[in-house]
Amino acid sequence: MENVTKADGMGKGPANHVALTPLSHLARARDVFADRVALIYGEIRLTYAEYAARIDRLAHALTLAGVGRGDVVATILPNVPAQSEAAFAIPACGAVLNTINTRLDPDTIAYILDHGGARVAIIDSQLVPLIQQAVAMMTTPAPRIIEVPDPTADVPASGMFETYDDFMARGQAGFDWVWPADEWDDLALNYTSGTTGRPKGVVYHHRGAYLMTMGTPISWRMTLFPVVLQIVPLFHCNGWCHTWMTPLLGGTVVCCRDITAAAIYDAIADHGVTHFGGAPIVLNLIVTAKDAARRPFDHTVEVFTAGAPPAAATLAAIEKLGFNVTQVYGLTETYGHVTECIWSDAWNDLPEDERATIKARQGVGFAIMDGVAVVGPDMQPVPRDGQTQGEIVMRGNAVMKGYLKNPEATAAAFDGGWFHSGDLAVQHPDGYIQIVDRAKDIIISGGENISSVEVESALMHHPAVSLCAVVAKPDDTWGEVPAAFVELRDGAEATAQEIIAFARSRLAGFKCPKQVIFGELPKTSTGKIQKFALRQQAAAL
Amino acid sequence: MENVTKADGMGKGPANHVALTPLSHLARARDVFADRVALIYGEIRLTYAEYAARIDRLAHALTLAGVGRGDVVATILPNVPAQSEAAFAIPACGAVLNTINTRLDPDTIAYILDHGGARVAIIDSQLVPLIQQAVAMMTTPAPRIIEVPDPTADVPASGMFETYDDFMARGQAGFDWVWPADEWDDLALNYTSGTTGRPKGVVYHHRGAYLMTMGTPISWRMTLFPVVLQIVPLFHCNGWCHTWMTPLLGGTVVCCRDITAAAIYDAIADHGVTHFGGAPIVLNLIVTAKDAARRPFDHTVEVFTAGAPPAAATLAAIEKLGFNVTQVYGLTETYGHVTECIWSDAWNDLPEDERATIKARQGVGFAIMDGVAVVGPDMQPVPRDGQTQGEIVMRGNAVMKGYLKNPEATAAAFDGGWFHSGDLAVQHPDGYIQIVDRAKDIIISGGENISSVEVESALMHHPAVSLCAVVAKPDDTWGEVPAAFVELRDGAEATAQEIIAFARSRLAGFKCPKQVIFGELPKTSTGKIQKFALRQQAAAL
Repeated sequence: MENVTKADGMGKGPANHVALTPLSHLARARDVFADRVALIYGEIRLTYAEYAARIDRLAHALTLAGVGRGDVVATILPNVPAQSEAAFAIPACGAVLNTINTRLDPDTIAYILDHGGARVAIIDSQLVPLIQQAVAMMTTPAPRIIEVPDPTADVPASGMFETYDDFMARGQAGFDWVWPADEWDDLALNYTSGTTGRPKGVVYHHRGAYLMTMGTPISWRMTLFPVVLQIVPLFHCNGWCHTWMTPLLGGTVVCCRDITAAAIYDAIADHGVTHFGGAPIVLNLIVTAKDAARRPFDHTVEVFTAGAPPAAATLAAIEKLGFNVTQVYGLTETYGHVTECIWSDAWNDLPEDERATIKARQGVGFAIMDGVAVVGPDMQPVPRDGQTQGEIVMRGNAVMKGYLKNPEATAAAFDGGWFHSGDLAVQHPDGYIQIVDRAKDIIISGGENISSVEVESALMHHPAVSLCAVVAKPDDTWGEVPAAFVELRDGAEATAQEIIAFARSRLAGFKCPKQVIFGELPKTSTGKIQKFALRQQAAAL
Repeated sequence: MENVTKADGMGKGPANHVALTPLSHLARARDVFADRVALIYGEIRLTYAEYAARIDRLAHALTLAGVGRGDVVATILPNVPAQSEAAFAIPACGAVLNTINTRLDPDTIAYILDHGGARVAIIDSQLVPLIQQAVAMMTTPAPRIIEVPDPTADVPASGMFETYDDFMARGQAGFDWVWPADEWDDLALNYTSGTTGRPKGVVYHHRGAYLMTMGTPISWRMTLFPVVLQIVPLFHCNGWCHTWMTPLLGGTVVCCRDITAAAIYDAIADHGVTHFGGAPIVLNLIVTAKDAARRPFDHTVEVFTAGAPPAAATLAAIEKLGFNVTQVYGLTETYGHVTECIWSDAWNDLPEDERATIKARQGVGFAIMDGVAVVGPDMQPVPRDGQTQGEIVMRGNAVMKGYLKNPEATAAAFDGGWFHSGDLAVQHPDGYIQIVDRAKDIIISGGENISSVEVESALMHHPAVSLCAVVAKPDDTWGEVPAAFVELRDGAEATAQEIIAFARSRLAGFKCPKQVIFGELPKTSTGKIQKFALRQQAAAL
């Protein structure tokens, strides 16, 4: 029949084929949910009609400033309203959104601005000195700077650049958006954290982001009108695409500049937050909050967590407080989460410790992914025995287009027709994936591979441990031995000997840390522990 | 940047571009939800592993029977397990699913088999005589017939054709599915009900059905693991795509051959049904059920209804019984529902009658549609005044490819870059659409247009009215006058004079029916009232 239909006037046309793009969600919400609250920040409340009108004006102002289809516009902003608005307005003028991590050093920011070629950069007023340093280090023409003061956080304008509101005032509400000509068109440019070498520029297309927004509500048990607290920075995989998703559901985004226990509890109690994503350290903040910061609420808050296995004690404590935690996993290259630890009611009656062990698994592929597998070097799936290690590889519409101006890295990432995560994992008999380690974090001791994640997971069951990281320490005899860096819970105490003895009760001897160092762990702005810094520290011990 | 990226190794590849198809949901569910119950019918329970294995075998058996990519396979089946399995297996061998209405006459079935060119037809054993008549009337080679006996409903095999299970046994579990080469490839062929002239063959593509399955859970407040009762026949827009959607959510489909109040209550009480779709007559069945048929349950059942405005009294009664009803609207050409009457909590405290009036509106465009509008002859939107009539037009990825072998009808349907529904509507100030009438159902009386739907809606507020239809009756003086056909509620009484007086209290005099006829209304198999039959009856009065 295919040949018949192709000759039969049944091609694609404007009535039956529209490019998939998250812009559609806002275009619909401004009409269907016009009077519902789209965004909250401090005293600011924007309805969808107001939010969309501001986005129109920003998109129009960018157009008037000469930004056209395919141009790059950077943002260097915390999760303030301007960041959410930019997430829509930059694509709505046909441009590519380049969210840059606010905590980078000037040299890396200069590299990204040079490499991405941003025409305009929208920056937080507090970051003016940083950006000035970065711009001075650039080798290509600097972007036009628009700065965003933040009265809510007592951040005044520097007076050096045009402000965001003044710039936006140049544009008009009702501006006709520039829709993607093709859903494969570039939507966003996100630089990897670049723990080794220069960061790579990951390119997202409209299709992938749209499908992420359609798949996320399913795994997140999300129905109409959620209230989403923006804890995951929008410069981290565009906040896992949650800002683009919220208008689909007529929901409300609650912006969060500073992530504190009080800010989280207040947002839940005052605005009825139903969902947020965050690293396990965010869970720690909630569990260890001082009484004065806590607020009562009577609904269940759904939490996506990623980046590291949460401590068993943290999980047990947080669920009693009214939060339901789901482990997810993904990379910048996959628009955020592409696996989820779907909970089975059959596990409800397991002991707390076993439940925590399951909850720390990365789980199964998201609904929109066509394959998430653990494979050996031959690209064949490893046995589902919970033992055999392989690399996690993915295939699906939520995998990046590639790395900007880096065809070699793109080709390597897509070798064999799958995206290679670089993460080592086992697959359990029920198909659930569990990360063993980043390839580069494996510790090789006396010829044996030790998974730093396995050792960390064991230590996280210790009731006094709030957070920990295990890295290789060079050793004359064994080549490398594990060293553990530990943050204790507030008020809790433990000695290095106790921690090592606890590890011995759960792990083979050669896997146990030979040294335990207490203190706060260095973290990236997204809450990931900076293992490279710990490796340097361990080497110097 | 676009030109840069295109020259930059960032094209589509197997890792980052997969054709959208509802087959993906089952491929994932067989792995992720292997042990969950996929399907229930009588004593039959299939897990996802079992369901998918049967689908493998059927797809393989079809392949062995010579069915290849783009071939058409017909089904003439009630909502029994074979129909759900065929919905996946036929596309899984690359073929096009042609579900045919079981209540058609042999001549129309012969026309559809000739026009669609089915290679194989899978039919209910009870329909063997009907199909034999139809085949005898065909002008092209007849399809190979596979028959499906149904022991659950005491329907034995006729012995004349190979049975479904015998045929399926030729295939193997583990058969490699034939995936669509392109998401625009044909998935299904659905004939319109053809109230005027021959039915038209509406062609669906994989992309549209996939997106329907992603959008429906959002409007239907659906989270993981729903239990979906299949009341809407799969030969009607493929059951609004719900069978393809269910594996996405790890849910269970409960098959329903005969739609009775007892069957519905039993499915809710015994299997925990959470969702079903159905015409307003299904709501009537529930409300008017005898005590013996009722069963208690303690959750809310979400119901999509479409086709006609439900009676106010029915709505009031059914909501007290634990059902939440949402009006949706769509056509065969739009894969089922593409508007929904999203409820606002602001309406909760309105009087019952006003709530029913709002609940009967068709509402706003679905999340996956890029435009549902009411336009005048100039294709410009009508004012949102609740008064000005226009035609409902749609644009989006859930609009058909076109009509098979009918480029003229396809071009006419897509005139001006929108799909033309042929339905007349007004748009309220809040954007909610309300159907006034099918263009062909408008009554022209003394030069004034009367909306038959408006008159029906008024009569439906009368407490004794269970169902009604208003059509034009030829009249020497006025050209046409409205005549009302009314089904009364069980045990209720009303005279024609009372009904007319009630209409006068709500409508202008010229809009009130001049004649009221009591009795059961003729309906299609999908519960639509057959107005053409009533027009004939009215003309003969």
